Amino acid sequence: MVGTKAKGSSAERELLHTLWNNGFAVLRTAGSGSTQHDACDLIAGRAGNAFAIEVKACGGGKQYISAEQMRELLTFSEAFGATPIVAVKWTRKGWGVIEATKMKQTGKHYGVTQKEMKTLTDWLAAVRIGFEVKQ
Amino acid sequence: MVGTKAKGSSAERELLHTLWNNGFAVLRTAGSGSTQHDACDLIAGRAGNAFAIEVKACGGGKQYISAEQMRELLTFSEAFGATPIVAVKWTRKGWGVIEATKMKQTGKHYGVTQKEMKTLTDWLAAVRIGFEVKQ
Repeated sequence: MVGTKAKGSSAERELLHTLWNNGFAVLRTAGSGSTQHDACDLIAGRAGNAFAIEVKACGGGKQYISAEQMRELLTFSEAFGATPIVAVKWTRKGWGVIEATKMKQTGKHYGVTQKEMKTLTDWLAAVRIGFEVKQ
Repeated sequence: MVGTKAKGSSAERELLHTLWNNGFAVLRTAGSGSTQHDACDLIAGRAGNAFAIEVKACGGGKQYISAEQMRELLTFSEAFGATPIVAVKWTRKGWGVIEATKMKQTGKHYGVTQKEMKTLTDWLAAVRIGFEVKQ
């Protein structure tokens, strides 16, 4: 049985490779979640547009992020000047992507379903159009 | 005796904290130098300005970077849209910072002396002015 942490790391590496293959430069964070500074799992940049990405792997119908983790992601992104993103690998259903600020808070958590997210393909296409409009 | 690798990691963490204390959001890269993708040791951002930083610790008079490591730093920075930076912690003499593109190539290496670098304080001040001019 693969643990939650290993699943998360494996998902991070998969997304890192996919983003590199789509023209981004991407870094995985060392010890994300274990330092006193705010952080995210991946940071991806392309032509000066940066995305701070929290990566999750989800076997159920809804992925939750704690209010504290959301606060860290938003604080980091604001300071860096990056767009905060949550990417979820849904078991056997592929990747979903959402801007963190669009997730709904319920109590001490933020939750999202796959339906509420863009597919990775659609997100990549939308971001690409954004670059072209900017240039 | 502290090995070269431990010295490098310790220098990375020190610079990470200093940059956070100066208004940057900073990440340390997981397994920098051990993946098939180009990378750098730290990435620091502030208000949308990103800096890809290679960190070294040097006990001698000159710090060298291999042409291959320089190529990786420049390739990553170009793709991300970040300024490539080399930061050196000179033993007992403090930090020096230089834009990677200003380092001189000699054979298969790029070399730099402390005199050719800005102090960390001066670099931070120069970057801060850059932000103000931009705004």
